[in-house]
Amino acid sequence: MQQWKTLKKELILNLGRFLKVEKHTIQLPDGKILYDWPWVVSPDYVLVLPVTENKKLLLFHQTKYAVEGTSLAPVGGYLEPGEDALAAAKRELKEETGCEAAEWIRLGNCPNNGNHGGGSGNLFIALHARKVSEPIIDDLEEMELVELTLEEAEKKLMQGEVKVMGWMTMIAMGLLYLKNS
Amino acid sequence: MQQWKTLKKELILNLGRFLKVEKHTIQLPDGKILYDWPWVVSPDYVLVLPVTENKKLLLFHQTKYAVEGTSLAPVGGYLEPGEDALAAAKRELKEETGCEAAEWIRLGNCPNNGNHGGGSGNLFIALHARKVSEPIIDDLEEMELVELTLEEAEKKLMQGEVKVMGWMTMIAMGLLYLKNS
Repeated sequence: MQQWKTLKKELILNLGRFLKVEKHTIQLPDGKILYDWPWVVSPDYVLVLPVTENKKLLLFHQTKYAVEGTSLAPVGGYLEPGEDALAAAKRELKEETGCEAAEWIRLGNCPNNGNHGGGSGNLFIALHARKVSEPIIDDLEEMELVELTLEEAEKKLMQGEVKVMGWMTMIAMGLLYLKNS
Repeated sequence: MQQWKTLKKELILNLGRFLKVEKHTIQLPDGKILYDWPWVVSPDYVLVLPVTENKKLLLFHQTKYAVEGTSLAPVGGYLEPGEDALAAAKRELKEETGCEAAEWIRLGNCPNNGNHGGGSGNLFIALHARKVSEPIIDDLEEMELVELTLEEAEKKLMQGEVKVMGWMTMIAMGLLYLKNS
């Protein structure tokens, strides 16, 4: 199977760091050309599932603009310009929970949207997480830290209490990993 | 916890059905106003994990514009305008695999991006899927149908062979569900 080839990119909207839009001209494997394919450029991000020494998951109850009500959420945030994904994961874990972790497991790095871009998510499990300082929450959302067992987290996940696609991915992938380890 | 309130929406880019961009004016719970919050409007979509009578998963090996190489993928596609999510899931299953399913499990409906929109994904497991016709593949991507056991699918998922966020969500959520049922 052959990939599609990008022939041309044209910037058509620039709203700064969080959203730019391009139009791509693309050649398919059979030679056909697609004009005006929309492509969203936004920053890559990390998601982190912290697991304490006694196998509890650290998660948030929080609001989010696209979410109705509150959602259960992992640690997460955008990469700073030029920042490495693992460094960003460690920074976000420290800022949001005050924790450091002894062992990091990388569970994937993939685009948020397979057709039209919009940044990639980097998924990490942070094992043996322990508190070393107070959190520095500078997010705009209200959020509350909770500790859940694997069973409690899985029940909430399957009942629809995790309400953003990447957050579901992080928690579901983390549970599959932890149940096998 | 209080949600953010949308005070105003302004359409600033219209590339047709697959991508529009708005600027939102938002009021936070503390009264603070955010101006020029980028918001992407794109169609909602379905993802379907078909499971055969003998507990095999039907998946695709396929290319996708945002993906390097090939990826393992569930059935999926955009809702037609006005179409119900379950109806779209049944239509996509029939078109892409030629199957119908006796039992449908809904595993969630959530936005692709918690901050800036971009459509919501509706996740379904299709149990007792059986072939009733030939597939009608009208997607632009090259794709090949494969049958995997739960163990084979989980191994490939954890090895990074599923390369789009929503596809990881669908397969990981499906495996958690099926392992408990």
